[in-house]
Amino acid sequence: MKSLIKLSAIAASISLSFAVQHANANDFTKQHLSVEPEFWWADMHNSQLQLLIYGEGIAKQQIKLKQGKKVKLLSVDTTDSPNHVFVTLELKDAPAQTLSFDIVNKNNVIGQFDYSLLTREANSAKRIGFNNKDVIYLITPDRFVNGNPDNDNHPSMLEKADRSFDGGRHGGDIMGIRKALPYLHDLGVTQLWINPLLENNQEKYSYHGYSTTDFYRIDPRFGTNEEYLALVQEARSFGIGVIKDVIVNHMGSGHRWMANFPSNSWINGQQAWQQNPKDILYTSHRRTTVQDPYAVASDRADFDKGWFTDTMPDMNQIDPKMATYLIQNSIWWVEYAGLSGIREDTYSYADKAFLTRWSKAIMDEYPNFNIVGEEWTGNPITVSYWQAGKQNNDGYTSYTPSMMDFPLYDTLIASLTEPEGWDTGLINLYQRLADDVVYAKPTDLVLFEGNHDTNRLYSLMKNDIGLFNIAMAYVLTSNRIPQIFYGTEVLMQSPSEGRNDGAVRGDFPGGWPQDKVNAFTEEGLSATQKEALSFVRTLLNYRKNSLAIQQGNLRHFVPKDGIYVQSRQHGDETLLIIYNKNDQSVALDLHRFSSVFNGNTYGTDIINKQSYQLDAPLKLEQKGVTILSLKR
Amino acid sequence: MKSLIKLSAIAASISLSFAVQHANANDFTKQHLSVEPEFWWADMHNSQLQLLIYGEGIAKQQIKLKQGKKVKLLSVDTTDSPNHVFVTLELKDAPAQTLSFDIVNKNNVIGQFDYSLLTREANSAKRIGFNNKDVIYLITPDRFVNGNPDNDNHPSMLEKADRSFDGGRHGGDIMGIRKALPYLHDLGVTQLWINPLLENNQEKYSYHGYSTTDFYRIDPRFGTNEEYLALVQEARSFGIGVIKDVIVNHMGSGHRWMANFPSNSWINGQQAWQQNPKDILYTSHRRTTVQDPYAVASDRADFDKGWFTDTMPDMNQIDPKMATYLIQNSIWWVEYAGLSGIREDTYSYADKAFLTRWSKAIMDEYPNFNIVGEEWTGNPITVSYWQAGKQNNDGYTSYTPSMMDFPLYDTLIASLTEPEGWDTGLINLYQRLADDVVYAKPTDLVLFEGNHDTNRLYSLMKNDIGLFNIAMAYVLTSNRIPQIFYGTEVLMQSPSEGRNDGAVRGDFPGGWPQDKVNAFTEEGLSATQKEALSFVRTLLNYRKNSLAIQQGNLRHFVPKDGIYVQSRQHGDETLLIIYNKNDQSVALDLHRFSSVFNGNTYGTDIINKQSYQLDAPLKLEQKGVTILSLKR
Repeated sequence: MKSLIKLSAIAASISLSFAVQHANANDFTKQHLSVEPEFWWADMHNSQLQLLIYGEGIAKQQIKLKQGKKVKLLSVDTTDSPNHVFVTLELKDAPAQTLSFDIVNKNNVIGQFDYSLLTREANSAKRIGFNNKDVIYLITPDRFVNGNPDNDNHPSMLEKADRSFDGGRHGGDIMGIRKALPYLHDLGVTQLWINPLLENNQEKYSYHGYSTTDFYRIDPRFGTNEEYLALVQEARSFGIGVIKDVIVNHMGSGHRWMANFPSNSWINGQQAWQQNPKDILYTSHRRTTVQDPYAVASDRADFDKGWFTDTMPDMNQIDPKMATYLIQNSIWWVEYAGLSGIREDTYSYADKAFLTRWSKAIMDEYPNFNIVGEEWTGNPITVSYWQAGKQNNDGYTSYTPSMMDFPLYDTLIASLTEPEGWDTGLINLYQRLADDVVYAKPTDLVLFEGNHDTNRLYSLMKNDIGLFNIAMAYVLTSNRIPQIFYGTEVLMQSPSEGRNDGAVRGDFPGGWPQDKVNAFTEEGLSATQKEALSFVRTLLNYRKNSLAIQQGNLRHFVPKDGIYVQSRQHGDETLLIIYNKNDQSVALDLHRFSSVFNGNTYGTDIINKQSYQLDAPLKLEQKGVTILSLKR
Repeated sequence: MKSLIKLSAIAASISLSFAVQHANANDFTKQHLSVEPEFWWADMHNSQLQLLIYGEGIAKQQIKLKQGKKVKLLSVDTTDSPNHVFVTLELKDAPAQTLSFDIVNKNNVIGQFDYSLLTREANSAKRIGFNNKDVIYLITPDRFVNGNPDNDNHPSMLEKADRSFDGGRHGGDIMGIRKALPYLHDLGVTQLWINPLLENNQEKYSYHGYSTTDFYRIDPRFGTNEEYLALVQEARSFGIGVIKDVIVNHMGSGHRWMANFPSNSWINGQQAWQQNPKDILYTSHRRTTVQDPYAVASDRADFDKGWFTDTMPDMNQIDPKMATYLIQNSIWWVEYAGLSGIREDTYSYADKAFLTRWSKAIMDEYPNFNIVGEEWTGNPITVSYWQAGKQNNDGYTSYTPSMMDFPLYDTLIASLTEPEGWDTGLINLYQRLADDVVYAKPTDLVLFEGNHDTNRLYSLMKNDIGLFNIAMAYVLTSNRIPQIFYGTEVLMQSPSEGRNDGAVRGDFPGGWPQDKVNAFTEEGLSATQKEALSFVRTLLNYRKNSLAIQQGNLRHFVPKDGIYVQSRQHGDETLLIIYNKNDQSVALDLHRFSSVFNGNTYGTDIINKQSYQLDAPLKLEQKGVTILSLKR
């Protein structure tokens, strides 16, 4: 939450004027108001709008719509909070305009505020969300590029920069991402998923961004709302979309609501916490409880009503006003910034009926949009429950088109790192894909090589560039929407066991002026790093124009002798992707794979451009991938 | 295949007479015929019948229906085999009768055979298959009870008895099972699944029965067809049904067909094997290939058209005559012996379109029947594909009501043997049940504590009677159809790692006259064995009258501190089943479970009959299970 004083400066569309007078027993002499959302748009699909008005003693005042063309004030609802009012408007057919509201006490107008309905950008509703054409690049903004050292600290923000601490704020920001856009474009990235940028005014460990303290404000250490908008617009000029990291499950304990709840059911465990802030019921993390046909209600509640951590209070989406607040907030950012997608954090931890409403509301506004949910489990059955189109036994319906493919990620890592055997290694990667039948639309899933919660790929691959290339090629040629993590392309490292957040979310080389290694200029990169960067860049850029990768049929062959072959085919384009996990080079007879040759007779390696006849044994170098584009 | 000489003796309903004359160039002077099925029934749901007639040179003769009321001879088909003819009859509205056929050559009747259409047993079609009321007891007949030492060897059977060899024949037989019926009834068993009893005239390792050499004949070392029929009828008088172990995937290499194929597409890899009997393409065992949306046809064929072993040729169910032969064979045994179920071996290894036909044909004949398939994998998605009612993405349809629940078995064993931890132990057993959503009807699955292919439960539980009791109670109170393995009730043992077929399929104590330990008399049983036997017997007999176990709602609670609680409830009957995996006794506060008390205030332990108040801490002994029947 921005400070109230600054409200008018930040949201130019709201003007405040409030009579200085004794209105009631509260004896307020000067009144500040905060209205959320700060502004809205005319001609939205959902024509209703809920305003959450915060002001000292506001609940005892009347709120009247003074001026608004084709606007109806449907209700003014109060809760047990003296300082919050919920105003619901009907905006059907209302044009863009400035509305005026009076605040009235005993027939005296004691205050007034305006509210803007803006004109939507052309074709806003028709925007295309991220999809199989894309490659998503995940950025932890505090750790990527420090484009503006002046905003590393901010007077009203509790935590100060400390680059020497791996759990501290390092100064990366929106300006840094903007500066990196040419690099990202050359790399071949087409979408940025940026870890949360909203204000996280927490005492410590605020850099990751998952403890929101203001749902309508970019953290000033990252930049401003306007800078975020500028980033999205600039990225678009590079053909790059921006995906917002949304958290509807929890907020930050530093949110002003914790001192002043909008209702008595605003967060879960609210009363207990209010009586004793140490009395926190943490989530059980037992995610199957909300799907399990035999689970008891109390176990479900222990999961979805528990707090994630003591600094992440669990929002109660069963409160319809909270639900509407969160839904509008998601839509506000899509509309305001011009986003191309949402990544929703800790997906199943939120109330599942709410998740249906939330996802439906967003997809109703933007039918071609995309949302990807995070359900962190290796079980495809559990993940599949949450995807749009899934026919669940309990009738549960979702409108979230995509989920993160943790099961395939887990299997990819395990299959590459364990020795080959009858039931170990590549065979598990092969067999995992048969589980695709459980998903409503497996090709809509997002497959990743790593994220801010996983150890670094190169480290997991034990610094083996061959295995690294296999993993990257697998993700980037899969029948999924691929996502890579910043710095993977230059082999950023971490420990390979356990949680290592600080190390995993290391600073991108070249993101700080003093950096000796610079991925942007390639200065100081090792030969292996340069090889990886080149490999990733070549593959990403190839992928941009390959319909076979983007939407082709997938066929694959049972792995044998450490070699796994897939094909992707679309129209005349056929790719043969050959993974060799052997330490030795192998001469591979290709006849077994002829059913996917589609009449082609030779293949050109898309990385080294060499051509090979398909009827002769193909020499595979030790551990690595060969991607052949087949030709007649 | 019975020897041809004995045909008339075995199948009294077929009379043979064959003119001794030169019929054609084959110059046969005496002709024997084999007709399969040996006889059939009037008034079957499927009114068509295929006769496979085997006789030297028969393919060059004409076969004419001489006499048959309301019977039509639809076709007489020959293949490239000179010695086989397929006769297809239409029997709609045909009464029970004896049909007569002429064998004709150039207008001369050179032979004749009769064929019986019998009257079906009353309500044969309405028989009820095994279901949730039942407990299935799996018997490996060679290793259970040697009821008739006179048939341990048989002059026409290649392998002789050798009880000193754990891979040899030990002499157990049908007579032995008949003698054990009072014991089994007292134990509380209601269904017997008996490993295959059909002739396995193989040189060695024939005891397990999975290498059929005659599809219509009980192996003479087990008994006769008539003895099998007597067993089923006797068992029925004890309230026990019999489930036949059917193998449609493969046969034994000793089958006479291997020297004289009924068609050139009778088995897979037939031509190659005929040219060189060492040229065998073995199955890849890669079972996902037949479900995988991305698998190639060649990989599917490598799985479902490969041989199981060199002594188990893979039958080609794509040959429609083979398919019909197998379907009729299954139905014949159900109808002949009065069976209450089929267990189908190596389920997915057979052609899947055939499996649809096969299962539909059986269930069309017996709509309330039951079939359970063996799909040996830990993945519920893979298993679920084969169950009747499953809506598969590829449109594949099955009519097989039940599958063996290998995933839950695997999880049960692992969860009890690994230490308790955040994501180890009982939590996995809890979470596995959430995967039930993937099944069309999870309660129709058969859950087992072990079978002839798994190591012995007591050994897997590291000879811990507490863990043993937990596992047994879990299986026997699950929302599944439970199946136990002979001898588990007296703690039969085996190694606990790897395959140990001979040891796993050990001789049941007391099954042989000289046995020092006798489970039937309890002579020589240890105190622990007696305790286990008593526990299993008590639970099985309790289960017989417990609708809560048979069909009640299942609820369960997230395991905590090594304790896992389930409830089963039906009408007024509620069971609380408390698993304690701790080495120590525990005083358990039951309040957490009150949502399943259904108004009851105390519970009676169904094993030791003690009663406990539900509002007081319940003292649980170390490692074990407490099953409370709740009362008001």
